[in-house]
Amino acid sequence: MKITEKLLQAHKDENAPASFSFEFFTPKTSQGVQNLYDRMDRMYQLNPLFIDITWNAGGRLSNLTSEMVNTTSTVLGLETCMHLTCTNMPLNLIDDALQNAYNSGCQNILALRGDPPLDGSESTGDFKFAKDLINHIKNKFGNHFCIGVAGYPEGHPEEPNNLKTLEFLKIKQDEGADFIVTQLFYDVENFINWCKKCRDFGINIPIIPGIMPISNYNSFIRRAKWNNVSIPNHFIDRLDPIKDDDLKVRDEGCLLMTELCQTLLNSKFVNHLHFYTMNLEKSSTMLLDSLNLLSNKQKNDYECENSKPWRKSLNPLRESENVRPIFWKNRKFSYIQRTNNWDEFPNGRWGDSRSPAFGNVDMFEHNIIRHSSTKILSLWNRPTNSTELGNLLIDYLNNKIHCLPWSDTQVTDEINSIKSDLIDLNSNGIITINSQPRINGIKSTDKIFGWGPSNGYVYQKQYLEFLLPKLKLNSLLDQINLIINEDGYDSLNYFITDSSSNNLLNTNIIDSSDVNAVTWGCFPGREIAQPTIVEKVSFLAWKDELYLILKKWSNVLLNSSNDLEHEPENDNRLKDLKSSKFIDSLISDYVLVNIVDNDYVNPTDRIFTLIKKLY
Amino acid sequence: MKITEKLLQAHKDENAPASFSFEFFTPKTSQGVQNLYDRMDRMYQLNPLFIDITWNAGGRLSNLTSEMVNTTSTVLGLETCMHLTCTNMPLNLIDDALQNAYNSGCQNILALRGDPPLDGSESTGDFKFAKDLINHIKNKFGNHFCIGVAGYPEGHPEEPNNLKTLEFLKIKQDEGADFIVTQLFYDVENFINWCKKCRDFGINIPIIPGIMPISNYNSFIRRAKWNNVSIPNHFIDRLDPIKDDDLKVRDEGCLLMTELCQTLLNSKFVNHLHFYTMNLEKSSTMLLDSLNLLSNKQKNDYECENSKPWRKSLNPLRESENVRPIFWKNRKFSYIQRTNNWDEFPNGRWGDSRSPAFGNVDMFEHNIIRHSSTKILSLWNRPTNSTELGNLLIDYLNNKIHCLPWSDTQVTDEINSIKSDLIDLNSNGIITINSQPRINGIKSTDKIFGWGPSNGYVYQKQYLEFLLPKLKLNSLLDQINLIINEDGYDSLNYFITDSSSNNLLNTNIIDSSDVNAVTWGCFPGREIAQPTIVEKVSFLAWKDELYLILKKWSNVLLNSSNDLEHEPENDNRLKDLKSSKFIDSLISDYVLVNIVDNDYVNPTDRIFTLIKKLY
Repeated sequence: MKITEKLLQAHKDENAPASFSFEFFTPKTSQGVQNLYDRMDRMYQLNPLFIDITWNAGGRLSNLTSEMVNTTSTVLGLETCMHLTCTNMPLNLIDDALQNAYNSGCQNILALRGDPPLDGSESTGDFKFAKDLINHIKNKFGNHFCIGVAGYPEGHPEEPNNLKTLEFLKIKQDEGADFIVTQLFYDVENFINWCKKCRDFGINIPIIPGIMPISNYNSFIRRAKWNNVSIPNHFIDRLDPIKDDDLKVRDEGCLLMTELCQTLLNSKFVNHLHFYTMNLEKSSTMLLDSLNLLSNKQKNDYECENSKPWRKSLNPLRESENVRPIFWKNRKFSYIQRTNNWDEFPNGRWGDSRSPAFGNVDMFEHNIIRHSSTKILSLWNRPTNSTELGNLLIDYLNNKIHCLPWSDTQVTDEINSIKSDLIDLNSNGIITINSQPRINGIKSTDKIFGWGPSNGYVYQKQYLEFLLPKLKLNSLLDQINLIINEDGYDSLNYFITDSSSNNLLNTNIIDSSDVNAVTWGCFPGREIAQPTIVEKVSFLAWKDELYLILKKWSNVLLNSSNDLEHEPENDNRLKDLKSSKFIDSLISDYVLVNIVDNDYVNPTDRIFTLIKKLY
Repeated sequence: MKITEKLLQAHKDENAPASFSFEFFTPKTSQGVQNLYDRMDRMYQLNPLFIDITWNAGGRLSNLTSEMVNTTSTVLGLETCMHLTCTNMPLNLIDDALQNAYNSGCQNILALRGDPPLDGSESTGDFKFAKDLINHIKNKFGNHFCIGVAGYPEGHPEEPNNLKTLEFLKIKQDEGADFIVTQLFYDVENFINWCKKCRDFGINIPIIPGIMPISNYNSFIRRAKWNNVSIPNHFIDRLDPIKDDDLKVRDEGCLLMTELCQTLLNSKFVNHLHFYTMNLEKSSTMLLDSLNLLSNKQKNDYECENSKPWRKSLNPLRESENVRPIFWKNRKFSYIQRTNNWDEFPNGRWGDSRSPAFGNVDMFEHNIIRHSSTKILSLWNRPTNSTELGNLLIDYLNNKIHCLPWSDTQVTDEINSIKSDLIDLNSNGIITINSQPRINGIKSTDKIFGWGPSNGYVYQKQYLEFLLPKLKLNSLLDQINLIINEDGYDSLNYFITDSSSNNLLNTNIIDSSDVNAVTWGCFPGREIAQPTIVEKVSFLAWKDELYLILKKWSNVLLNSSNDLEHEPENDNRLKDLKSSKFIDSLISDYVLVNIVDNDYVNPTDRIFTLIKKLY
């Protein structure tokens, strides 16, 4: 959606709280990119109106911006604004970038001239000024893109005449710019005066102030100088005495910026704040919290953001995607990668056309765990038996670690009602992989479980997926049969498989094409939405992925055990080897089980009760 | 489904109650056919395993049997067995009949020789004996049809040698017959002996006794003579003394037949009773009741019969039909007629392919009210104002009359919770057309509301459709807006139209393609079923139909007022005219409204409360 439309929606009600957005730059390493995605994923929870990705001008990674815009829109479901500079950019690269943004469902471009070549030479690009780029975008894409431009409240570094700078801005508006994002600044009175001048000059598109949080003294001073912006005295007065204590600087800086933002929001010019995050999380969230904008995190009126229990992709090719198997609940990157080639989602419903289409797991094997070997070792250490692995999982369930080899996402409040049961299982040699609690008709606006339009009700069947030692398989079947005999054949549905079978080892599903809706919602004036399912064909595809994840993990440990450069005082090679063998045993000596409790109305907690009998 | 399969399913459990079936013959007039359909429709509720339609040999209505088989399978959803006789039947007519049965989803044929020509001449048909017909069916349709044959426990009238008769029966089994239905009989000991002989003779297919209830003395005697069956003395002893009192004969006859049936069921040969209903309802149901087989009416294990809240069609072309608009809830004949040409139901879901496909209403205009003019006048008399029409509707709601011009079906217990409100509306000049109460998660096995597989839960949103005087339209909108402002824009959804508009007069639906699921069910291991909807396009199609019904009704009254043959002592001509004008005023001076209350969880009864404010 266009940023200008989102601004209108967010501020339909005059008393609505300020909206905000985050700017990120393209990292230098691929691990940095993965880490940034995780950070963006967390910051999505803060409910930014949009995010910006800066333009990666030239260089080896020249298409990284396009790639990131695609991921943030398609996988992370973040409304994205792509920066695009024309300095040194040939027309074909500009067109490629625009087309990629278009294809990714991105509808917002920040059109920039970009810094001139450092050696003082002329730009070699096809366009000289931002206005030419705007003109080109309009000619080529009509009104598809909402176009932002840069504003310079303290004047342009290369243009001493401030009136001229204002004229340039007006020209950009006349060429079709839809909004202005300003350079960072600390002089708030000057900013407000500049806004007045803009309005007097006929510049009436929204002005979004660029906010640079203060994280330490040196970078604060350096950035102000680099951007040629003045620092009001009270900033220096309050920061200089504590400049060597980073923590104190951050706290005081937060206060200073809070005052600045509050003054902006009290003026009639500003209802939205754009944060230059510098790819950091803390100082922006501190500032938001201090401005009381986090407590206002609430369900959007506009449905697109939250219309599904999973993160809806903004990629137009996935527009009609209305259902996902539960197995990839915490693996959205791999799910989207695997299903990227689906040329259509069958009108929002599952059917024969969908089922066998899970892309080959090999195609993304290099990325099966989204971390480098070093990070894998540091994140999850070296579990050598089920107790140690259980403890790792318990740390994850307690939010002490934020991801697992098979889970990109940290644990949310959703699992609170079953957390102690999950911990109990992991303390007793049963490795939980995925789960959801039962929900019987909670309001769709519920903070934890709600999704979809308001005034609806949402439902979930209890789901549990876990690895169980093969030796306990028969006991499990006995326990399941006890329940099935007592409560009815279809009270529970289960699938059991292992790494060596191409099919199921065991199930009580008679018709293997049956689809079990495990999350659904009933809304005013709508058909029932049933966005999360359990079905055999996708479980088998997921099984292959899970075993490949474990194999990769074991290989990382094995390679580490062979690494002769281990420092002697920290030689984990023996432990690496033992851990690698243990992870291998998860592949060879365990079965993968999932169970759905079909009764979401009468709370009996059959699943956990039956598994606990296996200890 | 094949009768033999249904028998196996129904008696999987040895202690299951006896199953039963009804035989109907083809009536002589088209009004008789309509009346019989209504009767069959009611008798469906008794849960017969199947019904038989006798063969209409030759004559003007030679394809009436095929037509009725199609209606009972497709519209009424009754498992049907078609009789087919070969006497005087040329091959092409036999093949037509078989093909029609096949196309209707009928899988059961009772293959009969048929009575020889009354004048003693030879049959002119291509087959002489039932065995030839069986052979032909097997050659042509393989195992598609389950084939029944006639059995003669007291010997064949034309074959004095009973052993020969048994040999013929054995040959029919060898040719491929799957079950035997016997002639009527009263000598139960002879019957049981005959069963033993059959078994000893190697005849091992199911034997279904034909049961002829006793409704009056003369017909009882006549039928016994006609069929050459003996009457045990105790029948005469108990019936002869009361033979002039029909009611007493029926009661005593019921007792006698109960004893007979009980003896049959106690024998090891019989677990199913086939009733020769003679197109009457009372004596068969009395007998069933006396046998305690009605109290056993319960949800079938086999899902096909009850898998939807509406009557599922057995026509294979409608196999994937999974959704119907609520408007035709009580008009299944016209709904199926209108949608007969749909060549596919979009995989059980609604989508673009379905919507505009409601056949032209003109195409069945002659049948828009399923009764003759005489019957229309006698059923609904001559309401001349909204009070009189209101009283008619109240009689309908109280089950004193069993159909309305716009409703083929009598009122069921489903409406109990809203019945007094509906009566209140009709007492106050608001004409209710269609409704359903709110249901929040009742067990799918519930006697009144249940449908679909067991261990599920079913839901309904409250729905009301009514005619409102145009003068009250603005007050209605005011009341609706009061609620919408207080409870939320989408707390209610409504459509308002009239006879003169091609579109809606008013609605709060923004996206006219929205589909509101108003009945749905959540079942173990399944996706959510949502078989009943409200949507604009079908409401507009329904509106045309309703106004055509009213026009037809008014015309019947007008024609009656012009009928000079009214008997003087019963001259309703003035009243006819007045009533015709009043019905016309429903078309010109009323609006048609439907309202869905989207909150099925919190009981507020918004719809009735708001309408009562319009009195």
